[in-house]
Amino acid sequence: MILLFTDYGLAGPYVGQLHAVLAAAAPGVPVIDLQHDAPAFSPQAAGLLLAALARDLPAGCTVVAVVDPGVGSARRALLLEAGGRRYLGPDNGLLAPLAASDPEARAWSIEWRPERLSASFHGRDLFAPAAARLLRDEALPRGPLPPADLVGAGAPAALAAVIYLDGFGNAWTGLPAASLPPGTQLRAGGRQLRRARSFSDVEKGEAFWYENAAGLAEIAVNQGSAEALLGLSPGDRVEVRLSDGKQEETP
Amino acid sequence: MILLFTDYGLAGPYVGQLHAVLAAAAPGVPVIDLQHDAPAFSPQAAGLLLAALARDLPAGCTVVAVVDPGVGSARRALLLEAGGRRYLGPDNGLLAPLAASDPEARAWSIEWRPERLSASFHGRDLFAPAAARLLRDEALPRGPLPPADLVGAGAPAALAAVIYLDGFGNAWTGLPAASLPPGTQLRAGGRQLRRARSFSDVEKGEAFWYENAAGLAEIAVNQGSAEALLGLSPGDRVEVRLSDGKQEETP
Amino acid sequence: MILLFTDYGLAGPYVGQLHAVLAAAAPGVPVIDLQHDAPAFSPQAAGLLLAALARDLPAGCTVVAVVDPGVGSARRALLLEAGGRRYLGPDNGLLAPLAASDPEARAWSIEWRPERLSASFHGRDLFAPAAARLLRDEALPRGPLPPADLVGAGAPAALAAVIYLDGFGNAWTGLPAASLPPGTQLRAGGRQLRRARSFSDVEKGEAFWYENAAGLAEIAVNQGSAEALLGLSPGDRVEVRLSDGKQEETP
Repeated sequence: MILLFTDYGLAGPYVGQLHAVLAAAAPGVPVIDLQHDAPAFSPQAAGLLLAALARDLPAGCTVVAVVDPGVGSARRALLLEAGGRRYLGPDNGLLAPLAASDPEARAWSIEWRPERLSASFHGRDLFAPAAARLLRDEALPRGPLPPADLVGAGAPAALAAVIYLDGFGNAWTGLPAASLPPGTQLRAGGRQLRRARSFSDVEKGEAFWYENAAGLAEIAVNQGSAEALLGLSPGDRVEVRLSDGKQEETP
Repeated sequence: MILLFTDYGLAGPYVGQLHAVLAAAAPGVPVIDLQHDAPAFSPQAAGLLLAALARDLPAGCTVVAVVDPGVGSARRALLLEAGGRRYLGPDNGLLAPLAASDPEARAWSIEWRPERLSASFHGRDLFAPAAARLLRDEALPRGPLPPADLVGAGAPAALAAVIYLDGFGNAWTGLPAASLPPGTQLRAGGRQLRRARSFSDVEKGEAFWYENAAGLAEIAVNQGSAEALLGLSPGDRVEVRLSDGKQEETP
Repeated sequence: MILLFTDYGLAGPYVGQLHAVLAAAAPGVPVIDLQHDAPAFSPQAAGLLLAALARDLPAGCTVVAVVDPGVGSARRALLLEAGGRRYLGPDNGLLAPLAASDPEARAWSIEWRPERLSASFHGRDLFAPAAARLLRDEALPRGPLPPADLVGAGAPAALAAVIYLDGFGNAWTGLPAASLPPGTQLRAGGRQLRRARSFSDVEKGEAFWYENAAGLAEIAVNQGSAEALLGLSPGDRVEVRLSDGKQEETP
């Protein structure tokens, strides 16, 4: 199974061309659109998002991950094995959180190049065909790369900021909810937000935070938009207030 | 074959996560995105829309239907058999029009629960895996439920209102076109609208209504947007004017 | 393999209904969403776009192509074989560029009609089922049609205009980049634009043009929107300035 995680958006032929390449090169392999509105131009935020989503992906799956503002410039193409799954994508920080999440992670620089490589669409021309070669057990020339040498290695595994705003205006933070002690409040958009279990536990129109289905702290409004109500944008800082009133030091 | 009908939207990882769960739990079963912009927060409107679409769905298919503003609260999870198809979704009125459409419909309360059930994403954690269990002929613990006991049972099978605005600004009403006598006009947005066979039968820019491809009366503008021209919103009432000048009594 | 190319958009049930029909009528055949935001109401622009994309589609594939502002009126339904691929769609100019691209192209008028043909949704009722019949090697009654008799036959194979704006605000022109001599500049939105190899070769925020991954000249801005910066709209003319300062005569 191949999953696609990109910032291509759903407009245009881009996602369709990925599918066409994969259907021809790896017939019979299911290809799933995991997400195509990953944070553009921010490999770090996109990487934290992907690492959170990875927990629930099927064991043994292969993820083609492309958030690649530097496409066309010199940057390595990566293959990463972590948590029993494989990831292919640019070496720009996107795969660093996944590499850091598994002490036994292994990484390679993909040396294989297709006959025709466009300057702007490495997802179609390089990463998707490389994934198909792996799935077909064909040779994929590559050189070993210590995970500590990946771009972005050593970056923190949590980010006290908005990393993604979904279509409902819910604000995903880069904070794993399990890392926040009971009673923790978040502060964003000028408001103090208490934790709730889910939408139905707060009043209609109330802002709160909760552990979302990917395990991250998410700021939301019951039947409303946190983005609109709190004026949130991607990258906005979020303050963590512990129950004893102290403000946590977070990256 | 599994079809997905939700109000998740196409942004974010939500639909992709449904597909990943299904691809792992029911390998080889085609999974189709029927619609992901079902009327949010309105199980009644979404239910009328799904009942209209059901007519053209393949016999024997299984539909995972999730419009679930009360996710996380106590409400039953339903399995419904109607018209030779199976539906899984919350018991909040969404499946009531389908249950009412078939006198031989049968319903069950799904008692099966997954090992891990998030508070906010029952589509991924409950309904999709339950559908996969059905498709694999695995046990799905459930208790019989008379269709008359479903939430929303007894609600009218037609609604003289806008139930959905599509991407072109066409306004779907909850009125089956076959129920409207010849010569019927509709009144919406302050205008009287005549019936036409299709877009090409009226002038460019003209508003009209016609029987859409799902069998519902739809208000449209040739090469334009009824939403914009008539100022329509979901939930807006539509008046039915019979050819004898009388206004029909409709729900 | 079937690929779908339409102007249906991703909102609503339209694309899902195409998939449901194909999954039932051609089980096991992969069906790929190539693009669903093809230029609406402009079969000529959509046809040039599809002809450019066709170059990279798998050999032997079948494309269901529907940009059909005249649906419901009298117009032929076409089957076209060109470049080793098959295309089904309305005879309104959409398939003319593909027919012109291959001197050995062959075309037919599809005479087959389904039992039930809605007035507004020939993609679902006519073109998709006809494609399924081809894939299943079932009879598809049709009459031969000289490609020169297609609507739009003889139209130019290049168009010095914006034919598509993608989700990032990149402006695809109808000009094959290979047809433009080195040093060619384009003029659009009041600015002279130089050619670059890719995004990473210009400054952030700079407008330029380059050969996009479909082989067309595309006007873009590094990490920005050409649509917004240059005020471009579909149909806007683009001037071709050769390196000797002359302005090329283009259609």
